[in-house]
Amino acid sequence: MNYDFCFRLWVHFFAVYAVSAFTCFQLHHEYKYIASKRISYFYSSKPQPHQFTVLVHSIPTSLSCSISDSVERFFKELYPSTYLSHVVIRRTNKIQALMSKSKNLYKRIAQLRANRTQQKYKHGGGVLGLFESKDSLIDHYGKKLEDIEEDVRLKQAEASLIAEEARAAFVFFKSRYAAATAFHLQPSVNPTQWITEPAPQPHDVYWPFFSESFMKQWISKLVVIVVCILFTILFLIPVVIVQGLTNLKQLEVLFPFLKSILAVKFVTQVITGYLPSLILQMSLKLVPPVMGFLSSIQGYISHSDIEMSASKKVQWFTVWNVFFATVFSGSVFHQVYIILDLKEITGQLAVAVPAQASFFITYVATTGWTSVSSELFQIIPLIVSLIKTPFTKQESEFEAPSMAYHRDLPRILFFGLLGISYFFLAPLILPFLLVYLCLAYIIYRNQFINVYTAKYETGGRFWPIVHDSMIFSLVLMQLIAVGSFALKKLSPASTWTLPLPVLTLTFNYYCRRRFLPIFTAYSAESLITKDREDENDSAMTEFYRQLLSVYKDPALFPIQHSSSSDSLVSPLLS
Amino acid sequence: MNYDFCFRLWVHFFAVYAVSAFTCFQLHHEYKYIASKRISYFYSSKPQPHQFTVLVHSIPTSLSCSISDSVERFFKELYPSTYLSHVVIRRTNKIQALMSKSKNLYKRIAQLRANRTQQKYKHGGGVLGLFESKDSLIDHYGKKLEDIEEDVRLKQAEASLIAEEARAAFVFFKSRYAAATAFHLQPSVNPTQWITEPAPQPHDVYWPFFSESFMKQWISKLVVIVVCILFTILFLIPVVIVQGLTNLKQLEVLFPFLKSILAVKFVTQVITGYLPSLILQMSLKLVPPVMGFLSSIQGYISHSDIEMSASKKVQWFTVWNVFFATVFSGSVFHQVYIILDLKEITGQLAVAVPAQASFFITYVATTGWTSVSSELFQIIPLIVSLIKTPFTKQESEFEAPSMAYHRDLPRILFFGLLGISYFFLAPLILPFLLVYLCLAYIIYRNQFINVYTAKYETGGRFWPIVHDSMIFSLVLMQLIAVGSFALKKLSPASTWTLPLPVLTLTFNYYCRRRFLPIFTAYSAESLITKDREDENDSAMTEFYRQLLSVYKDPALFPIQHSSSSDSLVSPLLS
Repeated sequence: MNYDFCFRLWVHFFAVYAVSAFTCFQLHHEYKYIASKRISYFYSSKPQPHQFTVLVHSIPTSLSCSISDSVERFFKELYPSTYLSHVVIRRTNKIQALMSKSKNLYKRIAQLRANRTQQKYKHGGGVLGLFESKDSLIDHYGKKLEDIEEDVRLKQAEASLIAEEARAAFVFFKSRYAAATAFHLQPSVNPTQWITEPAPQPHDVYWPFFSESFMKQWISKLVVIVVCILFTILFLIPVVIVQGLTNLKQLEVLFPFLKSILAVKFVTQVITGYLPSLILQMSLKLVPPVMGFLSSIQGYISHSDIEMSASKKVQWFTVWNVFFATVFSGSVFHQVYIILDLKEITGQLAVAVPAQASFFITYVATTGWTSVSSELFQIIPLIVSLIKTPFTKQESEFEAPSMAYHRDLPRILFFGLLGISYFFLAPLILPFLLVYLCLAYIIYRNQFINVYTAKYETGGRFWPIVHDSMIFSLVLMQLIAVGSFALKKLSPASTWTLPLPVLTLTFNYYCRRRFLPIFTAYSAESLITKDREDENDSAMTEFYRQLLSVYKDPALFPIQHSSSSDSLVSPLLS
Repeated sequence: MNYDFCFRLWVHFFAVYAVSAFTCFQLHHEYKYIASKRISYFYSSKPQPHQFTVLVHSIPTSLSCSISDSVERFFKELYPSTYLSHVVIRRTNKIQALMSKSKNLYKRIAQLRANRTQQKYKHGGGVLGLFESKDSLIDHYGKKLEDIEEDVRLKQAEASLIAEEARAAFVFFKSRYAAATAFHLQPSVNPTQWITEPAPQPHDVYWPFFSESFMKQWISKLVVIVVCILFTILFLIPVVIVQGLTNLKQLEVLFPFLKSILAVKFVTQVITGYLPSLILQMSLKLVPPVMGFLSSIQGYISHSDIEMSASKKVQWFTVWNVFFATVFSGSVFHQVYIILDLKEITGQLAVAVPAQASFFITYVATTGWTSVSSELFQIIPLIVSLIKTPFTKQESEFEAPSMAYHRDLPRILFFGLLGISYFFLAPLILPFLLVYLCLAYIIYRNQFINVYTAKYETGGRFWPIVHDSMIFSLVLMQLIAVGSFALKKLSPASTWTLPLPVLTLTFNYYCRRRFLPIFTAYSAESLITKDREDENDSAMTEFYRQLLSVYKDPALFPIQHSSSSDSLVSPLLS
């Protein structure tokens, strides 16, 4: 065999080992670093409501007493010395719907009013009839708004009744340790009743969440998994059909009036060259919201959990429908069919993956670079507001956006996957990725500091997703390497690469034992240390007092739109 | 297509559904029943030492203080109100070795003495020289025994020194709930230090266990897994070679003196007919002890855990090396090669499994029936004692045996697997199995009541193994059904059978959520209820006092062989 060729293959072999070792080393270092940051964040934090709180759901109902009573009785009996209080969650879906309706009406009225004053100011008196009709419209809406608000108040009053109690409650404890104990130990003999979870931060609670019972939650979870798999499998079918429409002759048949335009060469080039990929990109933009929605009906109780779950879903979706769909060029059915043949999988990968190298290099340069720069210029929000402004005619109240982890995290991780799996097949991808990562670092740093507000404190809980994704990328790369070496008839190298995925998975298993527990719960030692610190703090009684009111459904706050709009004419006491 | 044939296939189809549904229903019923038994057992139990105890290992060492001190400091700091005391585990491997040596010597002496008196009694005076040599032998052994015992006492005294402390301890708490909390919450910030486990029952502790540190335990676990896989893969190779030796010509070449015997027709029939299967059966007898040994070095701390782990290992071994090896007639390598092709697996099973129906029917009738009757007659212990008796010449102290779960449980479950996977391919297997199961029920019931002693209280913890095994059998049967229907060109039935394994696995997932938690730990409710019951019990102070001494390494008990053998001549105070 060609000596030089053989030598170069062995260089590749050692590169695979070296990069795997280096990545694992870095992953370990980073996991350790973030774990230590997480612990020190906890140690330096002030008392936070969610540390003292446990969410309990699937509370068994009884005819003799209300949910609130049975929660009180159950926890007072179990933890007489540490139980503080509780808040039962109410069913507020209807109130939420009414409130959003009233909010829209209020906006409409405010806008009409602004219009009127503006026009009055412009025309001095103006055509009388026009103002009159506007005034009557405002009155009409005002009356409607008042009706709705009255209804909301009625419903809010009803919500405090027993009938509207959901089978879930926030239970407060006197110490972090007590809350942690209540969450770690299965409270009831029946594992499907009185299920406890650590409470999310108050502004992180996803209020319209409730699958209250174990069975409901369990079934909705199964349904979401099935829907998610179907969505991943069937996603490409409509996309491919729509892409097929960009076939010029099809277009001419469907829209005969386009014939003259399509005759221009430039237009046809754009359509055949960019339209299909644009359609794919636009459809892919739909995925994070869809997965976010699916996660939200899965029974998670906080925005952070929903985003974490959605991140994982989007990530798997991207791996299947961008990576494998490109590599094996076909539907998920076809991919699954290839991948199920586990004997041939490395060979299949080794043939198919390198063939797409140039595509993915272009992908990094186009999708990667544009996505990160559109992140900087916030192009989509800009377009949306540009479209909206002429209709609403006034600046709506500006809310600082928050980071959508499930949109951006899987994308960055996907570029990591490309980098790791192509580094020895097509090293040309590396400079492109380097540019992308440098840009992303600078831009996201800026966005985090200057643009986004934090909707909730993650406390580093997203890191395990990144770690797992990198491990997956490594194993995929190693399997491709095994296949490649076998394909180039260098079977010793192929055989000696085989232990590498096993070693990587062992390393991952070690990391799961060593670091993951830190990310799922705090240790008794740190909880008790923090509790002792607070013991002599006089501010704690005030904190306990506030604790009871902090987990309040926003739908139960008093509503004040109509009165505030007429605040100058309405009496002070009503 | 033949109408009758088609109808019969559909009957099979409905039978598959019906049996799956019925089995799942039964499994649910049984899981529920055993879970309720387990809970009521806990409620009715007296205070037991292991309920109040936690085993902690991977204790960090420090130069400034001993392990014992740091355990005391750590737990007193964390749980000042509930911590009771602790016992540090000592390294006693050497003492154990010496003690077993001394025990053997003691037995030898006792035997020699018995011989002497017997012979004196028989011959009146007898040949003097013979007794003298025996006497001097007894003296010689006695001296040796005393030396060893002195050594043991020395080593026992040394064991109480700091240098011999293992990095593990039993920590006692004042209540069950406190112990459970200490075990459920990760005690230290570092998840690889101060690892807590629920303590086993005192007589269930596997004393020579200690992989003391997290890393050691972790690595030994990995090594055992690898060894276990290799053992499963390579097991059949030596067996097949040895079986090959039973080839008549081979035998004649190897042992020329057998030529005349081999000429007899009956002998050749026995050798070619039974010897190969006998060799396989004998080799299979080796598997449970080997797996037991592997589990024992895996870092489990109790006999029950070791037997549970060994049961699972033996079960997987049986499935691979008896079921799949017979079905695909080849080494595990070959089987893995077949099974890795997931697309074709159902088809492969559908072709290969029915072909072996008659073999497995014979297997049930021979191995099944003989194993269960040999269980009744305890043939192997009988043979062993028959062989031993002429040499030892006296009845050794009789110890009632205890059930070896990892030997019998996988075997019974394997017959369950055969029954479920063959019921629609070869219903003839069912009467044979029925006889086996009835026999097994009667005989094991008898053995449990009249023969075996309980080495430890299982508390129903073995049931999840049975459940999982049945689920595996069901899914295997359903996959075979899918393949069979496809093979018989009844593709709608094949397609409609596909949801069945998914449903079965969903059912299993539900059971894991609904029942498994009951088998892994007790709930806060039941722990606190039991604790309250004991609160006013005056016997508790006595119980706490005993608790401190109950977890004592048998190697540290005073040794008394030599003095007891000379008990009549030794002074009362030594």
